Formats: sequence, C-alpha cells, structure tokens
Amino acid sequence: MPNALPWALSQTQFAVEVVATIAFALSGVIEGARKRLDAVGICVVAGLAAFGGGTVRDILLDRRPLFWVQHAGWVWVLLALCVGAMLVMRAKHLDPTARAMQWPDALGLGLFTAVGTQIAIDAQMPAIIAVILGMVTAVFGGVLRDIVCNEIPRAFSDHRPYAICSFAGGWVLVLAHAAGLSQWGALLAAAGTATALRVAAVLLDWRLPAWQ
Amino acid sequence: MPNALPWALSQTQFAVEVVATIAFALSGVIEGARKRLDAVGICVVAGLAAFGGGTVRDILLDRRPLFWVQHAGWVWVLLALCVGAMLVMRAKHLDPTARAMQWPDALGLGLFTAVGTQIAIDAQMPAIIAVILGMVTAVFGGVLRDIVCNEIPRAFSDHRPYAICSFAGGWVLVLAHAAGLSQWGALLAAAGTATALRVAAVLLDWRLPAWQ
Amino acid sequence: MPNALPWALSQTQFAVEVVATIAFALSGVIEGARKRLDAVGICVVAGLAAFGGGTVRDILLDRRPLFWVQHAGWVWVLLALCVGAMLVMRAKHLDPTARAMQWPDALGLGLFTAVGTQIAIDAQMPAIIAVILGMVTAVFGGVLRDIVCNEIPRAFSDHRPYAICSFAGGWVLVLAHAAGLSQWGALLAAAGTATALRVAAVLLDWRLPAWQ
Repeated sequence: MPNALPWALSQTQFAVEVVATIAFALSGVIEGARKRLDAVGICVVAGLAAFGGGTVRDILLDRRPLFWVQHAGWVWVLLALCVGAMLVMRAKHLDPTARAMQWPDALGLGLFTAVGTQIAIDAQMPAIIAVILGMVTAVFGGVLRDIVCNEIPRAFSDHRPYAICSFAGGWVLVLAHAAGLSQWGALLAAAGTATALRVAAVLLDWRLPAWQ
Repeated sequence: MPNALPWALSQTQFAVEVVATIAFALSGVIEGARKRLDAVGICVVAGLAAFGGGTVRDILLDRRPLFWVQHAGWVWVLLALCVGAMLVMRAKHLDPTARAMQWPDALGLGLFTAVGTQIAIDAQMPAIIAVILGMVTAVFGGVLRDIVCNEIPRAFSDHRPYAICSFAGGWVLVLAHAAGLSQWGALLAAAGTATALRVAAVLLDWRLPAWQ
Repeated sequence: MPNALPWALSQTQFAVEVVATIAFALSGVIEGARKRLDAVGICVVAGLAAFGGGTVRDILLDRRPLFWVQHAGWVWVLLALCVGAMLVMRAKHLDPTARAMQWPDALGLGLFTAVGTQIAIDAQMPAIIAVILGMVTAVFGGVLRDIVCNEIPRAFSDHRPYAICSFAGGWVLVLAHAAGLSQWGALLAAAGTATALRVAAVLLDWRLPAWQ
C-alpha cells in the first residue's frame, strides 16, 4: 500500500478544509444574525466569509475559475448550512456558539493561510507577496463580512493577534520550501504554526502592542 | 416584414434597459443626497448603483471590456442624469421620489437578473453559479452604493424580498432554457418573474421569515 | 550628455512618486490610529491607501502584474514606514501631522492622476474612461481606507474639491495629447493642474455647491 499515507493525508486535508469553511461560514451567519440581517443577507454574508478571502486572492492573481465556481457543490453546502444554522438559532442562544467557534476558526486560519500562500508561490509570486496573499486568503473573508455588516473589521481592531498569526504561518511555508521540506511537510508546518499561534493567543490572552 | 418582431423586442429591451439603469442611478443619487454627500460623491455613488453589479459580475467572470467601458456614452448619460437630478432635488422633497422609484427599480431588478444570468450561462457557468451571478448583477450595485454610504446594504437587512426575487428569476431562466424556450422567451420569463415577485412583495407587504 | 534631461526627469518623477506613496500611506496610518486599529490593521489600511487606487484600476483594466506585486520592495518600504510612523505617533500628537499631510497628499493626487490616466490611454481606453480611471487611481485608495475604517469616504462627503481636481487633471492630459505635446509635457501639465487646483482649494477654502 504505497499510497496509503498520501490518501490519508488528502482525506485529512479535505476534512479540515470542510471544517474550516464551515467555521468561516458560521462566523458570517452569527455576525449577520447579530446585525439583524434577513435570511438572504445572512446567506450572502456567510458566503463572503467562507469564500471571500480566496476570491480576492484569485482576483489579485488573475486566476480563474474561482474555487466556488469550479466546485459549485460547495454553494449548495453553504446554502444548506445557512438554513440549518438559522433554524437552530431560532431556538437557542447565540453567545456559546460564538465562543465555541474560536477553535474551528483557528483551524481555518491556519489551513487557508497554507493553501493561499502555496497557490501564490505556484503562481511565481515573490516571497513577501505570497505571504501577503496567504494572509488575504485567510483574513479577507472576515474583512468583507465585517464591511458588509458595517463594522470595522475585527481582524484589524480587536488588538488580538489574528492576521499576524497568518503572516507568521506564511513565512514558515516559504522557509520550509527553502529548507527543502516536502510539499506536505511545508503545508503542515505552515498551517500548524498559524493555528498554534492563534490558539495560544486566545488561551493566553495575548495583546498586540497599542499606542496612546 | 419578418424582422418586425425582433426589432420591436430589441427596441423594447433597450428602452427597459435605459429605464432600469436610470432607476438604479437615481437610487444612488437619492441615497447620496440623504447622506449629505457632495456633488462628486453623488455621481460616484450613482455610478456604483447603476454599473457596480455588472462590473462585479464581469470581474468574477474575468470578462472584458466592462459594459461602461465599451459603451462610454453611458457615462455621459449618467453624469447628465446626476446633474439634472441634483438640480431638481434642490427644489423638491426627496421622499415622494424615493417611493415612486420602487417601480422602475423592480423593472431593473428583473432585467438585470435576466441579462446577468444569461451572460453567465453563455460563459459556461453551472446553473447555480449562473443564478448567483445574475443576482450579483441585479443586487450588488445597490450593495456597493450602501457600503460607500456607510449603511448595512438594504437588500440584506430590510426583511423584504429583493435578492430572492432575483434568485427565483434566475432559476426561471435556467429552467426555460432546459425546457427549450427561445432565447427571448426565456429572458422575458425570467425578467417577468423577478419583477412580478418584487412588485407583489411591495404591494402585498411580504416579509422574509425572521428569527429572535 | 544627451540623456541628462530625461535622467533628471525620471529621477524627479521617482522622488515625487516616493513622496506621494508615502503621503497616501501616512494618511492610512493616521486614519487607522484615529479609529484605534491595532498595529496589523494600521499596516493594512496604510497599504490600501497607498496601493488601493492603482490596484482597483488594474483590476478594472485586467492589467497584471499589479504594481506592488511587480515591485515587491515597496511592500517592505510600506511596512517599515508604518512601524516608524507608529513609533513616532506614540510620542507625539496627531493633529499637526494630519494638517501637514495636505501638501504631499495634493502632490500625490496630481501624480497618481497623471500616471493612472496615461496607463488607461495606453490601454486604448476612450477619453472619458481614461479620465475616470485616472481619478480611480488617485482617489480610490483613500476610499478603500475610509470604507475599512467604517467612514463615508471623505473624498465624497467633505464638500471640498478633491476628486474633481483629479478629473480636471485627467482632461488636461487628454487634451495635451490631442494638442501634440510630448509625453513628459502632457504628464507634467496634468499632474500640475490637479495638484495646483487642490492646493488652491485648500488655501482658498473652496467649497463644492451644496443643496438643501
């Protein structure tokens, strides 16, 4: 069974990707519900949160087809998820959900960072640009979500490390490639770094330096 | 006179398209004036409302030239319209204008939906993506208008069916093509469905289901 | 020394471009600090203010690579600038900086207008579209900065001539080309017109006509 390990890894990646996309979509559902959007608005905001970062990256790279265009099935998954989440939320309270979401969100941050940076490297971008595009992939879904909800994006204003964990993870990918690690090893190291930093930031209540 | 019908239809479509674009632009003028934008800001917001949806669709599809680049004459029409509207508004009250605009806006919703969905089908998009891009065409001009005016987009927050009428119209176009209707029949059915649903929603005061 | 004049002009253009980009980036730093963004948010908002206008223009024109992708060194300059500005701002008061920035900002307005309009003309755009894309280059960085900071864009709402100075400068470029001026003469005339109009607007306290 020479292919058992890649198969297991690919299944693992797929599972993590599903969890991450769902976490990002749910962040949109919760934010939309907080802002009293209607059912359509919540689906749009959930879609922006889940697919917006990768879409902005692909537009900046001039890369087509877009992920959600190529895998149109995901749009159905997103719609089903939103309807399900709205039905659940009619019965239950929101706040526990919001807190519980920090963990899948941290997973998503790491995975989207690794995938986004890798795609930019494959498109021959210089290192700093690849790292920034990985950060765009991981962070700009939430930024678009917050802009549509008429908030200053939380990633830029809550003084907790978020985008910077993605930034660090992107550099780990670049350095891992330079050090000759395998594709999989590099992706795992990058995603692991970004996710671990974010988990540590939440658990240990790290703050970014402030002024004034 | 074998070409009389297509000619009449094409003239009709052109007239409706003019009315719809003007209605969308006027919605930008009114929203901009409410927010006390200056004359330049009002022209920009009117341009976003009129051309923003189609521009976002074309960027997502990587389709060039953009409509307003190809038909640069429309930009002059838009500028003249804004100056005219601002002169009229200095004399009169806004609210009657805003209410009267619901009808051309409903026409625009239907037409932009039909045209946008058709363009996405022509670009080989799967059905759900074509329907979403038709909705983007019809709705995202208003979304950009509201974002620049620092409001939560009305289409997502006023709990009245708007984007969902476009969504339904888009599916009518897809089904009409599958059922073998002519291009014109399919476009008319789609635009008619979206517009009729929106008119009914306004007249009958339909509400989207809410939670909490 | 037949190349001395072009060399001097090219050095001058480079120096002005550096000053203009820095002025736009600083406007992002100051706006971000006012909104109490964290260090990461301030860097992102500074980057949007400096590179956002040109990026939107290039996306509308479907032009790649983007400026900051091709000249990745500028991203490092921007990061260094943001860190430096934040360190300085911890010690000093903000308001004088904001007022002093009006002059480099006016320079940037003129230069970005001239360069952006020229790029659109080179891409075979009709005159009105080229002028609009020049205005997008000069103004939309600040528009994105203000949207992310959850403000109505100042360029559209403060009733002082800003975008319209860029609009006038763009037409000067178009007319200068039509009149057969050299490339350099046309660019200087356009940038000079936009900058001079903006400086006059600030010094003489010009206002755009208002209604209501």
